[in-house]
Amino acid sequence: MFAPVYFDHNATTPLEPPVLQAMLPWLSEQFGNASSRHEYGRAARRAIDEARSQVASAVGAHPTEIVFTSGGSEANNLFIKGAAACLKPGLLAVSAVEHPCVIKPAEQLVRRGWRLHKLALDADGRIDEQGFQVVLAQQPKLVSVMLANNETGVLQDVAALAAQAKAAGAWFHTDAVQAVGKIAVDFRRLNAAGVHALTLSAHKIGGPKGAAALVLDKRVELEPLIAGGGHERGLRSGTENVAALVGFGMACELAERRLAAAPVLIRLRAQLESGLRDMGATLFGTGAERLPNTVCFALPGVDGETLVAQLDRAGFALASGAACSSANPEPSHVLRAMGVAPELARGAVRISLGHANTAAQVNDFFSALRNTAAKLQRLTAVAI
Amino acid sequence: MFAPVYFDHNATTPLEPPVLQAMLPWLSEQFGNASSRHEYGRAARRAIDEARSQVASAVGAHPTEIVFTSGGSEANNLFIKGAAACLKPGLLAVSAVEHPCVIKPAEQLVRRGWRLHKLALDADGRIDEQGFQVVLAQQPKLVSVMLANNETGVLQDVAALAAQAKAAGAWFHTDAVQAVGKIAVDFRRLNAAGVHALTLSAHKIGGPKGAAALVLDKRVELEPLIAGGGHERGLRSGTENVAALVGFGMACELAERRLAAAPVLIRLRAQLESGLRDMGATLFGTGAERLPNTVCFALPGVDGETLVAQLDRAGFALASGAACSSANPEPSHVLRAMGVAPELARGAVRISLGHANTAAQVNDFFSALRNTAAKLQRLTAVAI
Repeated sequence: MFAPVYFDHNATTPLEPPVLQAMLPWLSEQFGNASSRHEYGRAARRAIDEARSQVASAVGAHPTEIVFTSGGSEANNLFIKGAAACLKPGLLAVSAVEHPCVIKPAEQLVRRGWRLHKLALDADGRIDEQGFQVVLAQQPKLVSVMLANNETGVLQDVAALAAQAKAAGAWFHTDAVQAVGKIAVDFRRLNAAGVHALTLSAHKIGGPKGAAALVLDKRVELEPLIAGGGHERGLRSGTENVAALVGFGMACELAERRLAAAPVLIRLRAQLESGLRDMGATLFGTGAERLPNTVCFALPGVDGETLVAQLDRAGFALASGAACSSANPEPSHVLRAMGVAPELARGAVRISLGHANTAAQVNDFFSALRNTAAKLQRLTAVAI
Repeated sequence: MFAPVYFDHNATTPLEPPVLQAMLPWLSEQFGNASSRHEYGRAARRAIDEARSQVASAVGAHPTEIVFTSGGSEANNLFIKGAAACLKPGLLAVSAVEHPCVIKPAEQLVRRGWRLHKLALDADGRIDEQGFQVVLAQQPKLVSVMLANNETGVLQDVAALAAQAKAAGAWFHTDAVQAVGKIAVDFRRLNAAGVHALTLSAHKIGGPKGAAALVLDKRVELEPLIAGGGHERGLRSGTENVAALVGFGMACELAERRLAAAPVLIRLRAQLESGLRDMGATLFGTGAERLPNTVCFALPGVDGETLVAQLDRAGFALASGAACSSANPEPSHVLRAMGVAPELARGAVRISLGHANTAAQVNDFFSALRNTAAKLQRLTAVAI
């Protein structure tokens, strides 16, 4: 039986059973193309309309503000490159701890004449306030700062940052894929503060891979990445993935229940953190407000990659570095931006909890972790 | 019971039951992120590797030539915009009957300094040979000509066109989403002739929406549309939609069986065409080689949109104009490019058959069509 304990919910989440149930008709007899003008097509269109309402409702947006995409990476690229294509090149600011799907498109813009500033972080993983002021004084046209970090769970005060960016005249985007479903996210409130666009993704909240959304203030003009049949108000062409969007809608519908269960996650996290501290672990980002489900730590003298590989064999699935990215031997850019020394950053391991995790699993995990860490520390000692 | 007769397989196809069976584990207990370095992640990676082999094998390509995308529109945009971004602006030639997801990105490039030439068609819907020569003499850098047209089913001799384009030094792309699964498509042979890239899509061949591929000669440099974690050899970032890719692989595995059943489709099409001719219909593209499943026709004095709406009520799902695009009241750009008069083009209706269709359904269809057409022609006569 294939069932290691899953502690990697920031990478992806199991599909919630009601989500699969909602999807199944759209993977069988209800197979129409939503653009078709017959009953199969109209049924698909109605299902997408409902999903759009569910997604909008979960983040306090209006359905017409939802642009569906195939994933969070696409939504982030759509905002960064799509907004830039409608502006004269200027200054673009993104935080140094953004996901690569924000940093890389920002770097692509440099070849199109844009200047890129990576916003510095303090040791707790928050945007450095003074540095931010200096950048705002240079009147950036686009700013992107994530709501919650995937590796450390550290939250940014995006509303406050956006309010300042708005005063400086910037379009402000926030990648909220890790925040939605874990903390309350209200686009109406954020939009009033100065956030013009927000990304969320289905597979981070119990929904399927292949569906995400850019929530977009309609005053922002975007050039589509994918042009064609004119779907999604011309901002994202392509036959809609009806089943995935229906699943996304249902996952959003269930997200409130997830939020209500946050105290359970916080208790489990406390159990993890106190155990880890007892083992002499360094915990990252604990000086800042964080997601309820994420712990990022390093054990003295233990390599993160090796620890993750050993724990995998012992039946525990967790991540070292950013598990959303492809294999990358470099120490985490997130921890480096927080000023963590490379040797320590190389030890970093992330546990991201989900709603099926239990205190018993955490106890079992500590047995496995103690054995594994002791073995690895002995090996390191011998090697030295 | 929701089950009109489905005659719209060029818009999308029902998911083949073995495809859904193959997908289900990846929508339940096998939910890992393929980039995760634990057993859930490795299982997903192995599944994607297998899907890549299945897709490659179905079109005679090597697995390393497959770039997975979320859909055919994305794959076409990736080639057109991605290749253009790596070249100095020059001449781009696409056929006048391409899908909007080729024509629109080509038009976007005009704003980036490219010149766009739309290749003219003859009355049968084939690329006009003389016009093509004239364009080649101007040394286009990029050429895109579809293998089979979605509205008429007309095939282009892409190998011959590519061979000439190669001699002129162009990168040549073909949108094969309508061809794969209906006629034999061999990328190795096309590549030898001069085709550098080919698009295919899962949901056109009994697979799920949300998965497609650009088959790409590795000599072509592409800038990714979606940059980020570096998935798909850096050409398309974003968490892979494992279930959809697994379904795509299985659909490709079943495609050979679809090809073997082409004679059944050809017989049904002959039955349709002879009945339509008896009713005085104009059939489009019949002078050219065509897909076995597609009939495009117009009845004298009958509006296509209205006919499709009436037949929908009578229990038959078919398309007027290009059903892949969003609502567009203009007469088909495909028929216009073939020189069909606007009045006649406005009457155009497309039947695209699939493997579940039967001779009995075609007979029933003619009863419905005769009633409906007579009613509409009476109305037209009264109105005049």
